[in-house]
Amino acid sequence: MLIVGIESSAVAASVAAVEDGRLLGEFYGNTKQTHSQTLLPMAENLLRTLGRKPAECDGLAVSHGPGSFTGVRIGIACVKGLAFPNQTPCVGISTLEAIAFGGVACEGAIVCAVMDARCGQVYNALFQVENGRLTRLCPDRALSIAQLEEECRPWGNRLLLLGDGAELCYRSFQEWGARLAPEAMRFQRAASVALLGEQKVLQGCTVTPDALNPVYLRLPQAERELKKRQEKGAGL
Amino acid sequence: MLIVGIESSAVAASVAAVEDGRLLGEFYGNTKQTHSQTLLPMAENLLRTLGRKPAECDGLAVSHGPGSFTGVRIGIACVKGLAFPNQTPCVGISTLEAIAFGGVACEGAIVCAVMDARCGQVYNALFQVENGRLTRLCPDRALSIAQLEEECRPWGNRLLLLGDGAELCYRSFQEWGARLAPEAMRFQRAASVALLGEQKVLQGCTVTPDALNPVYLRLPQAERELKKRQEKGAGL
Repeated sequence: MLIVGIESSAVAASVAAVEDGRLLGEFYGNTKQTHSQTLLPMAENLLRTLGRKPAECDGLAVSHGPGSFTGVRIGIACVKGLAFPNQTPCVGISTLEAIAFGGVACEGAIVCAVMDARCGQVYNALFQVENGRLTRLCPDRALSIAQLEEECRPWGNRLLLLGDGAELCYRSFQEWGARLAPEAMRFQRAASVALLGEQKVLQGCTVTPDALNPVYLRLPQAERELKKRQEKGAGL
Repeated sequence: MLIVGIESSAVAASVAAVEDGRLLGEFYGNTKQTHSQTLLPMAENLLRTLGRKPAECDGLAVSHGPGSFTGVRIGIACVKGLAFPNQTPCVGISTLEAIAFGGVACEGAIVCAVMDARCGQVYNALFQVENGRLTRLCPDRALSIAQLEEECRPWGNRLLLLGDGAELCYRSFQEWGARLAPEAMRFQRAASVALLGEQKVLQGCTVTPDALNPVYLRLPQAERELKKRQEKGAGL
């Protein structure tokens, strides 16, 4: 079963192909160009190198958020486009789960996947690594760094920080022993999205391309501000 | 400082670029084609995607072995070719160290990098993970699985197996608790070669392109057999 994974939820973008639990290939780029310029050429290049065609895909997986609103939209649009001609089954993967997957070799660790959500908040989910598998400890959420610290402190040096918000949290969390994942495995990658996607396809948890939607966790800034103005207006 | 890493010591091949400790991009492919067909096009594609040119490289790193004799030769030849025009400094990285780098987030683990060397042997090196760094416990070597097991057994479940020989060892090592790294981080990648290469360039441990040589650990099969025949001949 050939699964292609697409990841463009933050500054880097990547594309990967997996088959029967094995990584066939991955193309990752952290460039200054926008994902709308790089993502499809990367997918095309990767599949050509592997001697495979988009039509051979049994499933398409994408990190559906949280993350950059524009980045997530580009990834989802790209997958919808690739999936449309053959109505290839689609799977949305939590960006935080894809990040956490980088820590899956760290038996016994509590993996804290954290993305900088700006405005004093982070996107976060916690996972426990047991027998080489991630067990989710909480749903994806947006919360303040202080709240997250309070919750995580009891784990001490079992806590392993991953994601683009990891360094930010590490500044204060290191005092009580939290660890920062090395740069090489700290960020979300399409390989993780594709491998997690394959499991979901096998479980039958797929959607049609038109039903694939972003999961932002928070409203976009423009909508948050509109809502605030409307509430203010209603209160006057 | 821009460093390009090349990895083609086994069935997969990959190319990566790092700058100041940060991964800029990586192209990994596990295809049925030979590395001599895929490696340079992958390097070209990656650098084009990143908007960089080979002439901008401050260093070229390659996994210099142990590994497939042909694979290692192709990687070294590729780096020599890229480095020649500007005499770019070159760095050879132990394939076993590049493999072990996949386990660097696993604080407290003993990382056992192991490659199938056929003829009942494995290539191996052991590393301890302390404060997010690998400390080497023994030189790269070729030994029997039984010898390796005897040495590793006292570490019990602290032992983490990585590399294309990991599954082979895991069959017997799992009895006393050894762990098998998940598929996604089990194998050597150019990103590790490039990141390790950058450290070596900063330490001034570079060679000129013509001085870059493979480190096979064992003689090629043809030479081993010739030697055996010559010894036999001498003994008669």
